Amino acid sequence: MPGPLTGLVPACHSPFHADGRLNVEAVDRQADLLRESRITSVFVGGTTGEWASLTVAERKALTERWIKAGKGTMRVAVHVGHNCQADAIELAAHARQAGAEAVAVMAPSFFKPSTIHDLVEFCSPIAAEADPLPFYFYDIPAMTGVRLPMSEFLHEAKFRIPTLKGLKYSNDNMLELQECVRLDDGGFDVLFGSDECLLAGLCLGIRGAVGSTYNFAAPVYHRIQAAFDKGDLATARAEQAKSITLIKTLAEFGFLAASKAVMAMLGVDCGPVRTPLGKLTAAERVALWERLEPLDVFPRPLNKPE
Amino acid sequence: MPGPLTGLVPACHSPFHADGRLNVEAVDRQADLLRESRITSVFVGGTTGEWASLTVAERKALTERWIKAGKGTMRVAVHVGHNCQADAIELAAHARQAGAEAVAVMAPSFFKPSTIHDLVEFCSPIAAEADPLPFYFYDIPAMTGVRLPMSEFLHEAKFRIPTLKGLKYSNDNMLELQECVRLDDGGFDVLFGSDECLLAGLCLGIRGAVGSTYNFAAPVYHRIQAAFDKGDLATARAEQAKSITLIKTLAEFGFLAASKAVMAMLGVDCGPVRTPLGKLTAAERVALWERLEPLDVFPRPLNKPE
Amino acid sequence: MPGPLTGLVPACHSPFHADGRLNVEAVDRQADLLRESRITSVFVGGTTGEWASLTVAERKALTERWIKAGKGTMRVAVHVGHNCQADAIELAAHARQAGAEAVAVMAPSFFKPSTIHDLVEFCSPIAAEADPLPFYFYDIPAMTGVRLPMSEFLHEAKFRIPTLKGLKYSNDNMLELQECVRLDDGGFDVLFGSDECLLAGLCLGIRGAVGSTYNFAAPVYHRIQAAFDKGDLATARAEQAKSITLIKTLAEFGFLAASKAVMAMLGVDCGPVRTPLGKLTAAERVALWERLEPLDVFPRPLNKPE
Amino acid sequence: MPGPLTGLVPACHSPFHADGRLNVEAVDRQADLLRESRITSVFVGGTTGEWASLTVAERKALTERWIKAGKGTMRVAVHVGHNCQADAIELAAHARQAGAEAVAVMAPSFFKPSTIHDLVEFCSPIAAEADPLPFYFYDIPAMTGVRLPMSEFLHEAKFRIPTLKGLKYSNDNMLELQECVRLDDGGFDVLFGSDECLLAGLCLGIRGAVGSTYNFAAPVYHRIQAAFDKGDLATARAEQAKSITLIKTLAEFGFLAASKAVMAMLGVDCGPVRTPLGKLTAAERVALWERLEPLDVFPRPLNKPE
Repeated sequence: MPGPLTGLVPACHSPFHADGRLNVEAVDRQADLLRESRITSVFVGGTTGEWASLTVAERKALTERWIKAGKGTMRVAVHVGHNCQADAIELAAHARQAGAEAVAVMAPSFFKPSTIHDLVEFCSPIAAEADPLPFYFYDIPAMTGVRLPMSEFLHEAKFRIPTLKGLKYSNDNMLELQECVRLDDGGFDVLFGSDECLLAGLCLGIRGAVGSTYNFAAPVYHRIQAAFDKGDLATARAEQAKSITLIKTLAEFGFLAASKAVMAMLGVDCGPVRTPLGKLTAAERVALWERLEPLDVFPRPLNKPE
Repeated sequence: MPGPLTGLVPACHSPFHADGRLNVEAVDRQADLLRESRITSVFVGGTTGEWASLTVAERKALTERWIKAGKGTMRVAVHVGHNCQADAIELAAHARQAGAEAVAVMAPSFFKPSTIHDLVEFCSPIAAEADPLPFYFYDIPAMTGVRLPMSEFLHEAKFRIPTLKGLKYSNDNMLELQECVRLDDGGFDVLFGSDECLLAGLCLGIRGAVGSTYNFAAPVYHRIQAAFDKGDLATARAEQAKSITLIKTLAEFGFLAASKAVMAMLGVDCGPVRTPLGKLTAAERVALWERLEPLDVFPRPLNKPE
Repeated sequence: MPGPLTGLVPACHSPFHADGRLNVEAVDRQADLLRESRITSVFVGGTTGEWASLTVAERKALTERWIKAGKGTMRVAVHVGHNCQADAIELAAHARQAGAEAVAVMAPSFFKPSTIHDLVEFCSPIAAEADPLPFYFYDIPAMTGVRLPMSEFLHEAKFRIPTLKGLKYSNDNMLELQECVRLDDGGFDVLFGSDECLLAGLCLGIRGAVGSTYNFAAPVYHRIQAAFDKGDLATARAEQAKSITLIKTLAEFGFLAASKAVMAMLGVDCGPVRTPLGKLTAAERVALWERLEPLDVFPRPLNKPE
Repeated sequence: MPGPLTGLVPACHSPFHADGRLNVEAVDRQADLLRESRITSVFVGGTTGEWASLTVAERKALTERWIKAGKGTMRVAVHVGHNCQADAIELAAHARQAGAEAVAVMAPSFFKPSTIHDLVEFCSPIAAEADPLPFYFYDIPAMTGVRLPMSEFLHEAKFRIPTLKGLKYSNDNMLELQECVRLDDGGFDVLFGSDECLLAGLCLGIRGAVGSTYNFAAPVYHRIQAAFDKGDLATARAEQAKSITLIKTLAEFGFLAASKAVMAMLGVDCGPVRTPLGKLTAAERVALWERLEPLDVFPRPLNKPE
């Protein structure tokens, strides 16, 4: 099984044309920006990737393009979760055949598993289909409404899912985070999902982080990591503060729509978000640019939106 | 546009083989039971139908079979909602072509619309694809987590969705129910979604009701309706009490899995539920039968499970 | 034990001076308005009465004044609940000594009972102190966050609380309402707490209702009751619609603050609400008056606020 | 104004006799244990102190006893919050007169402030009554249900509350924590309220922490602090892991009741918890002891319960 996903792992945006159709060609420009940002792994088709608004066919097309675009320079982990287990299995088989490095699955969220056991039942045939790819459970209770203790999940799932590698942990329960990190002597790969708390995560022992702002603001996070590595917490906190300003600003404008607007300001047009998410008006894009332009977090200068 | 859906409208179960594959042939036996129960309309592919656990292809196959099975005796309304709008549009087009009488769409529930406007944006292209079929919004906040005031939705959507006919209202907010019923002088068709409160719904003016227990316990609801029509509230309450006993018993065992077990006891084997819902053990099925057997609510005697 | 509390039971506002001090004298004017409105029972010191913002001494003073003001014409039920059981016991003893007709207690809401058993443990010494006064549990989960099945509570509590008479049911779970109404052959007094659904409650068998809008809009509810008694549901629904318009309008302005503004418009100045509730500005009071003035629901003409 | 509250600040249990009466004498034994544990500040009458289950008179008696017991060795901060502002004001005046070092107030939780402005309105007269004592807002949304952004609160309140010193932050929102810590160049005293995440808090810059497990497990937290100070994160994590095992074990048995059982095992009998919290049976106390006895976190050996 390949090694853990370490460092910054952007959760990539799914690029659309202005009319909403999938724009797979844009993936190449996304990959270029990430290489510039010293990124070596990506997470495709997650929440940032608006997976729930894509058809199964679109998700496959995206996966294929990312694997091609990342060839030789980037490891590609793919979210293959779906409310419908059969669709998730199909996506898992495809990810394996297409050459992905790992798969992840989140809990189904319309019908919700009520126990760890039911959740493991849901996941295990999907993981089996992706075998030998490493399997990550993607825990994101604020989106799925499924809030089960992850240390218990790891404990129980490891007997049922031989390829279980770890978690993508997008959950603000720091107690469970610590439990997961130390379980089996640190044997699980816990990918931290809270960009705004990267410093806290590092302090608690995480080695990799999946997040959306790593797409367009990797430099500030590299500086957090470097300062942390040197034991310079004052600098690390100051850099984390910049990331927080970025994140709060994006949230004010609607996080995902604003994030895609930033991608366009960096010369990587990923188009609008899909319904039911709200879009930014032209005036809002300019207002956002004015707020973000002074921040020292981006890998390229921001272009003013027209 | 066809008339409103009145009376009892069962939300049909999606039948599976024991191994979980779709069992479309069972639809004919479901339809027979409903005809015996004096049912003239059905609602296919909703929550009871485990829509979220079906592929798009399975949902189409089910719709086609129901339209065939109901031909001449039953009106078929189809839920075509999906988190992915493109999939919902495809299902809407299919429902129209296949000969459905109406379509319904629930709110996307992974990404959630935050305003009435965003919800109307999501629904209107789906409704347009189904045109001229009547369009119902399917409000079920306990499942979707989307809780927007339905009287405002109707008010705003009617200008954007020419085929808007009404709501499937699975929501315990009785204030908004009353608002929706009286809006436009009762011009909207409000299909009541709380089987356990049918009497209250009738009292407040609803004329149709969609629910899962109408599949297997229509007689008790027919008696509620008849007693209500005669102004005999004491009898209506006594019959509603029987329905409540039924519903609380099913809930104890896991509502959907237990409901399907009841279908099998009535000779209409719809198989198990799909993951992530939990299944009943053989012992639980027998225990359920023992609890339900004395109830005077079913259209046929209950067979004891093996 | 005295008979059930039937008909409309206003949950009275606690009157304050403009500077926030308790204004017990205003109780007499409140009582006059209620007598004019053909009210024969009141509920003192509940949510409408801002009990949580009053000291124990103030609650006692209020109780005494209401018992005096209602003497011979109105039965006085008193809410004696408190997060601190010792304070609730003190209030229960006082209510008994002061001559109240019944007491009610809601669940403690800072520390929350997690089981029916813990809730009964909390209530029973309070009820014992008020013995022989009839005891009502006041179920209002939207305020307390305590959501336990009331039919089970009644079932379990009747063995521990000999004076248990019933519930004040401010809960939108209509299934449990029906269960409570029919329990012990209708032996419990279930006081309905949803003014906006009075018609539904009557249909389901309730005989008494406690609510805040009965203070200032009793006529519309008397008409609902009269129409219901004659079996004229169309009229009952039309009157209930007026009540709903009233309630939605008050909610827009901040329900409790707006309700007190209405009392003042009726010539019964109950002063402002206490912190942390927000107050109405003078302009908002006028805007509220403009919205309410056309409604045909009040017992007296509304005076325009200055 | 006195300096910030730094280091470990136990949130003290309120001691009761076996029959539930307040047992102020036990405070002296609590203080002895804390001195042994190198504690120099305490937080009295908070959530751990079951404030909501105490009368106003009991809260005053406790405050007085702690001030006496701590004289010369411990700084005493007092929670004076209450749903009823008048009671909170009375407690604030008392704390000042009795010689407390600081006061704290949580949001009222029956009626909930809906804006920062309403919350500041609630707090400011209480803070004024305690002037010149430093004022802390006690943010604990999991208990109060009031979830307002604390960085905005600090920003707005500092203009209205001259004595505003900082926060007791019992909230798992780590983004807002970081914002509060850096606000006004670190000018606010942010007392961290998550014992299980002390290491993360230190990493993010907090200098003081208020928590319940500091009463009986201070040694493990002193070791976390010492390891952190030396930059030895591996040791700090290992010690934090012990604290987590402790906390998860207590939570299994009912956190507060189990915590008080531990106090008794340490020779400091604080009695049972008050209703509506559930008590431990004798068998549960023994089972708890068996689970805790092996842990290397306590300042004294644990006595086996009888």
